[in-house]
Formats: sequence, structure tokens, C-alpha cells
Amino acid sequence: MARAPFRSVVALSGGVGGARFAYGLSRALEPGILTVVVNTGDDFVHWGLSVSPDVDTVVYTLAELSDDERGWGLAGETFETLERVRRLGGTHWFMLGDRDLAMHIARTEALARGETLSDVTLRSAEALGARARILPMADGPCHTMIETESDGTLPFQEWFVKRRAAPRVRRVRFEGDPPASAAAIAALQAADVVVIGPSNPFVSIDPILGRAGMREALAGKIVVAVSPIVRGQAVKGPLAEMIASLAGEAPSAAAVARHYGELLSGFVVERGDETDVAWLPVLPTSTVMKTRADRVALANDVLEFAGRLR
Amino acid sequence: MARAPFRSVVALSGGVGGARFAYGLSRALEPGILTVVVNTGDDFVHWGLSVSPDVDTVVYTLAELSDDERGWGLAGETFETLERVRRLGGTHWFMLGDRDLAMHIARTEALARGETLSDVTLRSAEALGARARILPMADGPCHTMIETESDGTLPFQEWFVKRRAAPRVRRVRFEGDPPASAAAIAALQAADVVVIGPSNPFVSIDPILGRAGMREALAGKIVVAVSPIVRGQAVKGPLAEMIASLAGEAPSAAAVARHYGELLSGFVVERGDETDVAWLPVLPTSTVMKTRADRVALANDVLEFAGRLR
Repeated sequence: MARAPFRSVVALSGGVGGARFAYGLSRALEPGILTVVVNTGDDFVHWGLSVSPDVDTVVYTLAELSDDERGWGLAGETFETLERVRRLGGTHWFMLGDRDLAMHIARTEALARGETLSDVTLRSAEALGARARILPMADGPCHTMIETESDGTLPFQEWFVKRRAAPRVRRVRFEGDPPASAAAIAALQAADVVVIGPSNPFVSIDPILGRAGMREALAGKIVVAVSPIVRGQAVKGPLAEMIASLAGEAPSAAAVARHYGELLSGFVVERGDETDVAWLPVLPTSTVMKTRADRVALANDVLEFAGRLR
Repeated sequence: MARAPFRSVVALSGGVGGARFAYGLSRALEPGILTVVVNTGDDFVHWGLSVSPDVDTVVYTLAELSDDERGWGLAGETFETLERVRRLGGTHWFMLGDRDLAMHIARTEALARGETLSDVTLRSAEALGARARILPMADGPCHTMIETESDGTLPFQEWFVKRRAAPRVRRVRFEGDPPASAAAIAALQAADVVVIGPSNPFVSIDPILGRAGMREALAGKIVVAVSPIVRGQAVKGPLAEMIASLAGEAPSAAAVARHYGELLSGFVVERGDETDVAWLPVLPTSTVMKTRADRVALANDVLEFAGRLR
């Protein structure tokens, strides 16, 4: 157990994989220790409402409200509004459930009256009972754009959800370049250790690392990443294809470590993948999180490993 | 039965009472005969969405989707989004159900891409199976404002729903002065008879009559109104108090007839109320609609009466 040594831990996270790992951290650490800084590059406006898919996935997961079997959204969710919108001829490609919709309504209202996305996120995470501080990477808009080989440039959600991540990716770029949120910077400055969850480096973590102030706040910190690639395959999502097309190499844990480069103090991989990564401290362990207990076990492993790197 | 004589009937309507009467007309007349022109003075923006309460009440009622017992909204409605918005600290005084919400989402989307409110309303009424053409009085904004004696000036829905129509009304005025919608004018010009439902004259019918082009389109038409006052009392809503404060007289069917003045060719009242109205043709009948059969019976009575006025 690595609880005692850390007074402050920051996790960087995208959606599902990062959220599950953050859940493990939130259970492995005492209350008040963990802050999760979440990608907002996927944020978009839908039905006139501000939707933050990764932030909400982290909030729901840490509040134990997420639907673990389906892999997105809320457990016990209903879709009355969506079904009626479909019948009325409205846009219905994005699966917005009735309770999830409330997050976007409350967020849109709060932003309209001048609150920051950080304020809204902290408040809604608390209202729903998430056991960590959850912060967006930035308060201003930064849109992840996917330049495809076949279909031009698409906003992330259109590429990922509407087109099912099928069009091959030529380049990922960002529209909007807001600085890291003040709260995220403060959390990083106070952190004993920074953990990068098993999220997609290109579309989940790079947007966070690219915010002005972020690299400076990370300098000198113990930074440990968990590989989202296990035995050459992505646990979830289109990462394997992206490594091939964007990094020009076969998908592997090592390719992810190379992508993060000198940022990492250590790297956590699935047992057997450690042979590829010889240039930095590596923890081989069981990284695939099937149950909630798996998440906590992985979090404890990672925290203990990070403790040894200090 | 008065079906044969009319090729085209227009009903002017506010919310519940007018909608129930329009339902009766839609069943008493052959398909294709009825157009309902609906007040939009109550329209407002809520959760960033364009809400048209009276239009939707008419659509739901004519599609047999309304909750007749509760008196508003949809039968079998759920409130998952509203409950979660409340928990998240968002605005929750307006009872928006999950399916109802879809109407506002689809409408807001369609208006944003340049459709008129008439287009959207016709389309959604058809999608939900309403058995009549349903048109908003205007395509541009016209906001009913309630000047109160105690609480300043309030937008209609805030006065009516949030304040439960409690603050005494000093004056009703309108912000925005759009002309009648082209479709409403065309429907009126083609009408053999125009029927004003048992709606509130001040806040439901006056906004319609006040649109530029409306009075001209009504000139020379047979116009019959159904009294919303029965034995000195409003069947529903704050009308009795408004007659007292705005017309300066005791609430009565006669006061409503005086309010409409020379517009009326005939007036339909509850049996016993006819003694007050001596200056124009009056049909005393049973006007309180408890069942759907009551609505159809009243509609048949009114149509037959209107037929005799030609």
C-alpha cells in the first residue's frame, strides 16, 4: 500500500480508460488527495448545449454512476428525449440519455451566467458524489480536429461517434489554444506525483499537455503513465490504428512511451510488454481493468511504483 | 350535425381550454377542414431552448398525447432530466418532462437552421399525429408581459408558473410586434367560419388578434367565441381576477363578449349565462368539457350555431 507517502496526486485523463483508472486511484487514496485533470478537446455543442464527454465520463465513473457494461453513459439511463427528438426529425446520432442531458443543461446555464467550466465541473462532481476533485484541462474552448485521409477534417465527436472512428487519421490538430485552467495548474504544482491514465495519448492526453503552463507545472515532477496498449492492441478505441498512421510504427506499449518521451519518470505496462521498454523504469503488472477491484489493484500498484521513483 | 357546410374552419386558441375545444372540432370536422392558430405570447427561452407552451399543448391535445388529468404536458411523461437538473443546481421551476423537452430541442435546432416557427409546428404536429393543421400566430417573437401591482413586470410564464399567477395584474402588454404568420393569414382568408375557443381573452386571444393582418383577415367572417367564464367563474386559470382588474367589472360571460366587441357574430355560453348577453346571437349550451365526448359535443353545437349565422 502506497497511501501514506502522497499528500497530493494528480491524474491526467481522457474518457473511459482514464476514468476507470482514476476511480481506482480515488479508492486507493484517502479522501482529499486526488485531483483528476480531464481532456476537454472532445467538448462540443449539441442540441445547443455544451457537452463535455470526457469530463462527464470521469464524473460519472468516480461517482459510481456509470454504466460499466455498456462502457459509456449512466447506469439505468433512459432515452425518452432522444427517442422523441428522433421522431420529430431532430439530430439523434449522439446518444444523449435523459439524466446525462441534465448535465449539459446545467452546464450550459452556468456558463451562460458567467461561471467557468472549472467551477461547473467541481460543483457537479460534488453534487453527484464523485470522490475526487475533477477539473477540466482548460476553461476556454480547444477543439480536437481529426484530419482524415478520406473525409476531410472532422470535429472529434463526429469522427469518433458519428463515423465510428472509421476514416483513417492523417493528423490531429486543435482549434483554440486556451491556457491550462488556473485550478489545474495549482493542482499540478501541489502534486507529489502525476499519473497519466491509460488514455489515448493523441486525442486525450496531448490536448492536456499542450495547454500553456502545463509543461512548466509538470517539470521536475514524478510522472508515471499507464500504457493503453496491451500486447500490441488498444484496450478500447482507435488508438492502435492511430499509432500506425500518426507515429508510423506498429502499435506497442513502447510506442506510447516514446510518444511521451522525457516527460515520463516511469511507465506501467501489461506483464510481457516490459521487454520493449528498456530506457526507463518500468512496472509490469496487470493493467486490464475488468472489475472495480482491478481498478483499485492497478492504482495501488502504480502508486507504490511511483513511490519508489521518488 | 354541421359537417357538410364548412370547407374550412379556423380556431383561435390559447392553451388547455382552447386546445380541448380544438380537439372537439378536429373530431367533429372531416380531416383537412380545421386549422388552429395558436397564441405564442407565452413562448420563452428556458434552458437555452425555445419553448412554445400553448402551441405544444394544442399539438399534444390534438394528437391525443396530453395528460388530461394533470391538465398539462404529456400522458405517461417522465421527468428524469428535470430531477437531475435540480440535483445539479440548475433552474427547475418549469416542469419540463423528458418527451416534452424533445419538442423544444427539435424546435430550437430547426429555428437555428433557418426554419420558421410555422414550418416547425406544422411538421412536429404531423410527426406526432395531430389531426389538424396547427400554426403559431406569428413567426417572430411577441412576449406577453404582465405588469403586476406588487412585483413589477414579469414575463408571462414567470408570472403564471413560477409565481402561480398570484401577483395582481395591472396591465398586459406585449414586447415585440411581429405580423401574423403568412400561413395563419392564408388560413383565415380561406375560412368559412372562425371559432375562438374558451381561452383567456387577455393573454391568449388578444395576442393573436393584435398581429398585423389579423383583423383584416377576420373582417366579414363569421366569428363565434366560446365563453371561458361559466357562471361568473373561470373554468381554469386566472381569468376571473383579470376581468376584475383589467376590465373593471365583475367576471361574467357578458364581460368576455363585451371585450371582443364587434368582432363577434355570435357567442356560446353555459346555459343560464345567456340572459346577460342580449346584443348578439347567443347559443346557451353545455360548455364545460369534462370528457373527450364533451369536447366533440360542444364542437358540434358551436359549428351548428355558426352555420345558422351565415
